[in-house]
Amino acid sequence: MRSSPTTSAGLLTDRYELTMLSAWVADGTAEHPAVFEAFARRLPVGRRYGLVGGTGRLIELVADFRFDADEVAWLEAEGVVDGRTAAYLRDFRFTGDVDGFREGEVYFPHSPILTVTGTLGECVVLETLVLSVLNHDTAVASAAARMVTAAQGRPLVEMGSRRTHEQAAVAAARAAYVAGFASTSNLAAGRQYGVPTVGTAAHAFTLAYPTEAAAFRSQVAAQGVGTTLLVDTYDIAEGIRTAVEVAGPGLGAVRIDSGDLADEARRARAQLDSLGATATRILVTSDLDEHLIAELAEAPVDGYGVGTRVVTGSGHPTANLVYKLVAVGDEPGGPLRPVTKRSPDKLSVGGRKATRRRYDAGLLVEETFAIDETTEDTVEVALMRAGAVVHSPTLDDVRAHAVASLASLPPEAHRLDDGPAHVVATGVSVP
Amino acid sequence: MRSSPTTSAGLLTDRYELTMLSAWVADGTAEHPAVFEAFARRLPVGRRYGLVGGTGRLIELVADFRFDADEVAWLEAEGVVDGRTAAYLRDFRFTGDVDGFREGEVYFPHSPILTVTGTLGECVVLETLVLSVLNHDTAVASAAARMVTAAQGRPLVEMGSRRTHEQAAVAAARAAYVAGFASTSNLAAGRQYGVPTVGTAAHAFTLAYPTEAAAFRSQVAAQGVGTTLLVDTYDIAEGIRTAVEVAGPGLGAVRIDSGDLADEARRARAQLDSLGATATRILVTSDLDEHLIAELAEAPVDGYGVGTRVVTGSGHPTANLVYKLVAVGDEPGGPLRPVTKRSPDKLSVGGRKATRRRYDAGLLVEETFAIDETTEDTVEVALMRAGAVVHSPTLDDVRAHAVASLASLPPEAHRLDDGPAHVVATGVSVP
Repeated sequence: MRSSPTTSAGLLTDRYELTMLSAWVADGTAEHPAVFEAFARRLPVGRRYGLVGGTGRLIELVADFRFDADEVAWLEAEGVVDGRTAAYLRDFRFTGDVDGFREGEVYFPHSPILTVTGTLGECVVLETLVLSVLNHDTAVASAAARMVTAAQGRPLVEMGSRRTHEQAAVAAARAAYVAGFASTSNLAAGRQYGVPTVGTAAHAFTLAYPTEAAAFRSQVAAQGVGTTLLVDTYDIAEGIRTAVEVAGPGLGAVRIDSGDLADEARRARAQLDSLGATATRILVTSDLDEHLIAELAEAPVDGYGVGTRVVTGSGHPTANLVYKLVAVGDEPGGPLRPVTKRSPDKLSVGGRKATRRRYDAGLLVEETFAIDETTEDTVEVALMRAGAVVHSPTLDDVRAHAVASLASLPPEAHRLDDGPAHVVATGVSVP
Repeated sequence: MRSSPTTSAGLLTDRYELTMLSAWVADGTAEHPAVFEAFARRLPVGRRYGLVGGTGRLIELVADFRFDADEVAWLEAEGVVDGRTAAYLRDFRFTGDVDGFREGEVYFPHSPILTVTGTLGECVVLETLVLSVLNHDTAVASAAARMVTAAQGRPLVEMGSRRTHEQAAVAAARAAYVAGFASTSNLAAGRQYGVPTVGTAAHAFTLAYPTEAAAFRSQVAAQGVGTTLLVDTYDIAEGIRTAVEVAGPGLGAVRIDSGDLADEARRARAQLDSLGATATRILVTSDLDEHLIAELAEAPVDGYGVGTRVVTGSGHPTANLVYKLVAVGDEPGGPLRPVTKRSPDKLSVGGRKATRRRYDAGLLVEETFAIDETTEDTVEVALMRAGAVVHSPTLDDVRAHAVASLASLPPEAHRLDDGPAHVVATGVSVP
């Protein structure tokens, strides 16, 4: 059996989208042209930038967005949609265009990360899926990017699968890799997305043997001396002594998962060196986040395993992106008029935007958007045309783009303490 | 196409489980008997209790836990497992027993929520899946329960799908319903789990028409006057006036999604009453959590829509449950010895536990666990026997159990401010 519920992407949708669609199918509005944008009104409190995650995953889901016949029958039986809307859903294919920021691009408040153009009907039913994918993956990528900065080149392993929903875990591993993590513990992310996987052993492994030495002997027999031995099940100093005794000074690495990690790493380094295991690496884990990683910069640590805090966005588990109608026509194929709601605490700007950036000595100093139709020099790229994906970078391309985009931020924007968004996109020309 | 990646549950696993398994298959330890327990060392900071979520979803996944032939081939090609372990995985079925707290049960630090008994090999590969499902669903259910308390009988709608991973959203809707939410916006949760679904309209609906009145007319034409009209796209007072003008005083409800919700609800009630719409209900949404819901207790609100904060666990997106080996044998079918790691900051108690509770006037006053084999009067129930599910309550049964379990807590435990766990399970007899 498949691990995942056999649900079409179409049902991963809030009911109100189909409520709206029913009215629009009934009066013909469903065929009017529309533009929706996904953007953040503000970044999570204290964050200076965000990193776009999930775009690649999203556009594949949009290209295959369907409602199965039995799902449509259920929707009709439940009174969610009437017969005419049911017919609309049975034939549903997204046939519009999608433009947006590249995955791995830094973004700021009001940056129009994704722009969806099509009929009102086909754009509105994508709302929940667009936001679910982008809000989750972007939250993880944004947190992961700060951890990568804090690690100053030391490798990070994503190992938070157990702290989040079992399918979210796979997407989180992918998003952390995009942001610069070296690898993941999640096997599905390895198989589905090609993210490098790593794995050592848990305390249960050692506890299953009469002695720690017996456990280490078994692991080395199966994995070779290059393996990573978890040395803190009973006593770290004793564990390290036993580890080197069993594996020899060629032991790959030791992992420490408890205690004051800086102190323990220093003690472990001295002990390993005194035992001749000068090339044995020290990996630390245990509720790390970007701040704790930064505090360990001076400790002799060779790599970090990060779990809970990266998959839950380090305090901000959602990116708070919204998906808003910004332009609409009043007849099929008709001209678009910009629209926006007026609620004073939720301001947004109507009209389809094109985003441009100004750099000084390679560093990003300004982001502006204009309500225009030209696409010259814009941050946005074409992602889908007439319902087909037209942007398919490899995951390593996306990761390389993230490196470049993060490098365009000045040191100030990479600070981990709370601060304002590095730039806030501003409108410059509204025709 | 299916919306979900075609991955077997087996791959939703951390690589280290298969690293350990490889060593255990090689030296025969994989067939030794073992007991693992899932529990929380502590509750999220300030929480006085937790509510178990996800158990029903989990045991169905465990019963069907497999590795596909092509996945096993990939694991072998990647060097994750050797040939012998690959053969073990190809035939893998969980054949052990699972006991645990009922879904919808309140729990505390050290409560052994789930106990998995079998061979070391079959127990260890379940670790990530067990924790992913329970940590996510329990985090949502625990937050949702506090919101239900705060709402004092007013209905709550879960509408956070857009703020979390698209599959996590379905599980979150289910968990919130277990904890007492009335309904969800998520259609997949309606179809897969029978959670009642509701839906109104977004601001985009109104913006798509030349006037608010035209939008309301279209919605009422499609949905009838019992529908819920979103009245804050332009101006709330004007929106309400137009809504009643279009639908008449029999209008079902208005939704307000911005502004000071208490003030707006009071103004809206007075206006609706003055227009003769005395039975028209007022629904409020907009970043609600349990504290804001409690603050609205005196306002004339008829229902709450909760999004971000419920699906992200209201500040605690994971329950921090761990899955630990507590007893193991040294030969197949051999006697069990209790085990525990010694790290001072991560204390756990070895041995298989049975949990009992003492009540005073119907209120829970004590939770104790004993290391014994009897199952009399224990909180735990049998969930799986020899790999088969033996506990299949309906979701409404689970929900009813949550009501009863929450009612066993005194008012002190239901306080929303930070406080200590209501009780902490203590060991009473260790043979």
